[in-house]
Amino acid sequence: MDTHVRPTHPVPLTHAAQLDRLAEISVRVGLNLAHGQELVITAPLDAAPLVRRITEHAYRAGATLVTTFYSDDESKLARFRFAPDDAFDVAAGWLADGTAQAFRGNAARLAITGENPSLLGGQDPDKVARANRANSRVNRPSLELITNFAINWNIVAYATPAWARTVFPNESEAVAVEKLWAAIFAASRTDGDDPVAAWAAHNATLATRGRSLNERNFSALHFRGPGTDLVVGLADGHLWAGGAEAAMNGIVCNPNIPTEEVFTTPHRARVDGFVRSTKPLSYQGTLIEDIMVRFEDGRIVEAHASRGENVLTRVLGTDEGASRLGEVALVPHSSPISQSGVLFQNTLFDENAASHLAVGQAYTKCLSNTEGQDAATLAARGANSSLIHIDWMIGSNEIDVDGITQSGDHQPVMRRGEWA
Amino acid sequence: MDTHVRPTHPVPLTHAAQLDRLAEISVRVGLNLAHGQELVITAPLDAAPLVRRITEHAYRAGATLVTTFYSDDESKLARFRFAPDDAFDVAAGWLADGTAQAFRGNAARLAITGENPSLLGGQDPDKVARANRANSRVNRPSLELITNFAINWNIVAYATPAWARTVFPNESEAVAVEKLWAAIFAASRTDGDDPVAAWAAHNATLATRGRSLNERNFSALHFRGPGTDLVVGLADGHLWAGGAEAAMNGIVCNPNIPTEEVFTTPHRARVDGFVRSTKPLSYQGTLIEDIMVRFEDGRIVEAHASRGENVLTRVLGTDEGASRLGEVALVPHSSPISQSGVLFQNTLFDENAASHLAVGQAYTKCLSNTEGQDAATLAARGANSSLIHIDWMIGSNEIDVDGITQSGDHQPVMRRGEWA
Ligand SMILES: [Zn+2]
Ligand SMILES: [Zn+2]
Ligand SMILES: [Zn+2]
Ligand SMILES: [Zn+2]
Repeated sequence: MDTHVRPTHPVPLTHAAQLDRLAEISVRVGLNLAHGQELVITAPLDAAPLVRRITEHAYRAGATLVTTFYSDDESKLARFRFAPDDAFDVAAGWLADGTAQAFRGNAARLAITGENPSLLGGQDPDKVARANRANSRVNRPSLELITNFAINWNIVAYATPAWARTVFPNESEAVAVEKLWAAIFAASRTDGDDPVAAWAAHNATLATRGRSLNERNFSALHFRGPGTDLVVGLADGHLWAGGAEAAMNGIVCNPNIPTEEVFTTPHRARVDGFVRSTKPLSYQGTLIEDIMVRFEDGRIVEAHASRGENVLTRVLGTDEGASRLGEVALVPHSSPISQSGVLFQNTLFDENAASHLAVGQAYTKCLSNTEGQDAATLAARGANSSLIHIDWMIGSNEIDVDGITQSGDHQPVMRRGEWA
Repeated sequence: MDTHVRPTHPVPLTHAAQLDRLAEISVRVGLNLAHGQELVITAPLDAAPLVRRITEHAYRAGATLVTTFYSDDESKLARFRFAPDDAFDVAAGWLADGTAQAFRGNAARLAITGENPSLLGGQDPDKVARANRANSRVNRPSLELITNFAINWNIVAYATPAWARTVFPNESEAVAVEKLWAAIFAASRTDGDDPVAAWAAHNATLATRGRSLNERNFSALHFRGPGTDLVVGLADGHLWAGGAEAAMNGIVCNPNIPTEEVFTTPHRARVDGFVRSTKPLSYQGTLIEDIMVRFEDGRIVEAHASRGENVLTRVLGTDEGASRLGEVALVPHSSPISQSGVLFQNTLFDENAASHLAVGQAYTKCLSNTEGQDAATLAARGANSSLIHIDWMIGSNEIDVDGITQSGDHQPVMRRGEWA
């Protein structure tokens, strides 16, 4: 008998064991943290139990220092309730500068998501927009280090009570939290015999898919379905990415846990037609539903929503790049997250249930041969630039996608939401 | 009947009401926060309920942004247990730089104390010392802004379970926490009819005491008692401070809640004799008991302790200024904190139970006419300079203090621990 053999039918894992596995996946797969790296974590206060498991795994992996910034919904809300009006143009630039300095010094970055999706729903949208704009402005340098993939980074989720209540409004809090955890653990692949090996296999599948799209080197994608007829031009020398990737510091990591998408950089000036969102977008506390937009020459020239239209309009007006695309991603409708039927109201999960677009900042890593190219050159190749990057879902089992080759031929890519 | 009249015999306050008063005292008296200021808070995770009350009071007072850095004992301990050896010379310089930038931008600073006094007691003292040194080094710029009183700042306490268990080891955790809260609320003067007015009266008493010492302008103080015969020279042009003071940003605040001391800057080169500590010193997790040190020409030339001597020796060796005095403070033995009989194992409280000395950095605010004077001039006047500032208690009801006038006369200042 070999003590290293794992049982074929393991006993169901306890919550504590699953949480520890999520922490291990985050550190070993998500971040692939290297000996000697610092780690900077952001997390809701409720997520302290996961932060502690991650902190231990990080130090075991050789981290020199783990610094966690906790956020607290109640304190955040107090500002909108009680602060003077001039407060909302203020942001902690000093903290953003410090964080960017950490990343430039090769600190890894981990975000634990679990915020209440509707926290700021009842607050003055003007204050919310001003606060977001002030934050985006000061965080631009560190956001660029993330979007340019200078360092290894990861996002994982924690089932906070406020989030769970929003996702399962008809359940008691305890049941809602339990259901949300079950969905998070399943989507994050914590429950198999060997979660690290399961992630390696999943990464291999996504890599194969990306390679096939790179070989075909489409000029554009054509999305068709109810309310949607959209041609999305792809950037010159675009690259498809998905699953594990090498950051510029040489570390191969999995930025999103879970992830099901392959994605690339669209051409900021070559998007035309109209498109309808297939899932609500939860944007910093506001739910935006039934987005319908029309593009001309890459720019959104018309935007509507059945709910949250004013927030949508503000977001698109953040800057010149906020009304152009920075990402296009393909996710089959059969993805486990889509099949769970849960609307998480959290981009990390919902974007992995459906093909999607993002307005705003593009990922330079999704372009070939960028070294030494300046901003103007990248823009001419099609890479968009903005303070924001916001994903919204346009995929479903009613959407067909064609690839348009450089010579103008159409090739089926997806049919009724599945790979063709 | 006037609805503004407060009842003469108020009903005992609930815990929530006392906590809210502590928050109000911290914001209105401790910080005296001004409209338009940012506020930076550090706090143990357990203190979230007080952070939330303080955050609300801060925004009501006109704060633009409250940023809280939570610390977690368990995560801190994980580093000493699991991190590689080379981790302990690393500190978050990027965060220290950011914080200093916030203070230079006139952010106010609030520290909530409540850490477990013996958290690191069982850890490798070498690692603890290296980690402290690395932290002190990067935090020097922001520490200097605090010690030079560039901005309004405040420390208050929160009765965490770990701290309460250390202070009341023979009680259940619930009883220990309740007892510690009672002691904190009493010392912080939360329970009278009008706590803000009570603080104004207390500040007036301390100001009178300081003025009297300033008028007498002693050359030195002479401490005598069991194990103690020490002459502490005072810096040229020293000023006594205590209670409310004006920060250099013009805001009059109360840095310590509670406070009972009047204090000034000793002369770094004119301290001679020997002295024994009268209370244990809890230094970043280690308890140092029965300190006995001998001074020659201002420098500690011999140091012993019945417990924690190795940590004491390391601390005194941090840098050149770490073995010289930066503060001398007088506190009557009848101070409410001393009378409570509780050994808090926390400097904020224990230093207000007894007269004390601090090794390390001096307070420039305790010197007259410093404007335009460089470091060499300040040092020649007697102001000490160091990465550290650590208070340890030398007062008791067995200690007499004389003031030595500039002409060499002795005048009684304290007898058996009380003002003479
Ligand atoms: Zn995406
Ligand atoms: Zn995206
Ligand atoms: Zn003192
Ligand atoms: Zn002191």
